[in-house]
Amino acid sequence: MIAPFFSGYPIRRDLLKAWTTDEDCLTIECTVTVYKKPVKTGTKSLPKIKVPRSDIAEQFGKLLQTKDGVDVSFIVGGETFTAHKIVLATRSPVFKAELLGSLRKNGTEPITIKDLQPAVFRALLHFIYTDSLPAMDDLNGVDRCEMIRHLLVAADRYALERLNLMCQSMLCEEDLQVHNVATTLALADQHGCGMLKDACIEFITCSNVMEAVAATKGYKNLKRSCPSVVIEALEKTSKTRRE
Amino acid sequence: MIAPFFSGYPIRRDLLKAWTTDEDCLTIECTVTVYKKPVKTGTKSLPKIKVPRSDIAEQFGKLLQTKDGVDVSFIVGGETFTAHKIVLATRSPVFKAELLGSLRKNGTEPITIKDLQPAVFRALLHFIYTDSLPAMDDLNGVDRCEMIRHLLVAADRYALERLNLMCQSMLCEEDLQVHNVATTLALADQHGCGMLKDACIEFITCSNVMEAVAATKGYKNLKRSCPSVVIEALEKTSKTRRE
Repeated sequence: MIAPFFSGYPIRRDLLKAWTTDEDCLTIECTVTVYKKPVKTGTKSLPKIKVPRSDIAEQFGKLLQTKDGVDVSFIVGGETFTAHKIVLATRSPVFKAELLGSLRKNGTEPITIKDLQPAVFRALLHFIYTDSLPAMDDLNGVDRCEMIRHLLVAADRYALERLNLMCQSMLCEEDLQVHNVATTLALADQHGCGMLKDACIEFITCSNVMEAVAATKGYKNLKRSCPSVVIEALEKTSKTRRE
Repeated sequence: MIAPFFSGYPIRRDLLKAWTTDEDCLTIECTVTVYKKPVKTGTKSLPKIKVPRSDIAEQFGKLLQTKDGVDVSFIVGGETFTAHKIVLATRSPVFKAELLGSLRKNGTEPITIKDLQPAVFRALLHFIYTDSLPAMDDLNGVDRCEMIRHLLVAADRYALERLNLMCQSMLCEEDLQVHNVATTLALADQHGCGMLKDACIEFITCSNVMEAVAATKGYKNLKRSCPSVVIEALEKTSKTRRE
């Protein structure tokens, strides 16, 4: 028998007794409504004028697409990109020194950028103009991870601190696995990414996967390029085992 | 007698009967814990790398302050302001037409802006660069309201839609009173602010303050400048009274 109860509604004692006598159990079902914001009661209030969220990043994103008023161009891996000096300089202290500072070249010659893939430079520009990463829906897991690694290197090169942390966060949360953790650790060490480095060492020691990691190609490279990091990881693993 | 119940914990029928017999009522107290985010259980997780919130607006705010690479200047009420054409053009289609479009003047002569106070232009530039309004802590209530009205006019002039809605929202929520509602209504009508206009008419009709409003100077001006709006408000008030 299911009896309806309502909040604040009194229940007759004889009914309650009857239920507990006739039935094997008394089921009490509580429906709880959680209001995330206080509900206003009382007099009718004026209509609320809703202010849309900030769209400054979207507007600069459109500027990148339309190329209105571009005043600088780059050649990256054979591809040409155009941009706005003031936007690059506002977002990156390295671009600021190159484009506005004492190192400025007054000419309109394109600037050649080496050791960076066109796709990475495109994503870098997207971040500079919109403060977010492009969708990267067309990339599979491995390529996406590779792109984030390259972007981390580019973020370090152009001193884009927030992009650097975004890449560290993504590599840590989305893609830390036995087969790639040593490569990520080497990258983190080379580019001063303290938090990602800590996360990699934590992954190795807490998951007890040191043996499996030691068998990867990335580990062999790491041992050669950053021996001090390998020692750090080994010492920590050994300490964890003793505890 | 208060008996402890726990979720999923069976209650002996004789105990329940005893409580309902000995006591006048059976009080059931439910403690409900609402978790806003799912709580992860299980193995120790890796340290989380926190990505700071977007700082693009702050960076453009700094650009406005440092004046690095400015390429355009304005004279407003005797004061000179410097800015960056590309930033103004990205944010305002009117500035875009003036500074980048066919109307562009190639010279570096300062642009004189009429009918705008220097303080209003300063706040307008702050909004253009940061997508937010300056603090205005130094202004008292009346001056602040006056500044928001001027900013609404400037937002309409430079087609800054979000600033327009911010001003409409502030005038509606912070400062709609009997002594100023007619002035605000005239402003809303002149600058095509439909939502603020609706809110003003709603304020007059719902609060039953038509007589008091009709005694204000702003109402007399409104009757002269926008008679159709006065008719709209009067008709709505009269309809509300009949209902």
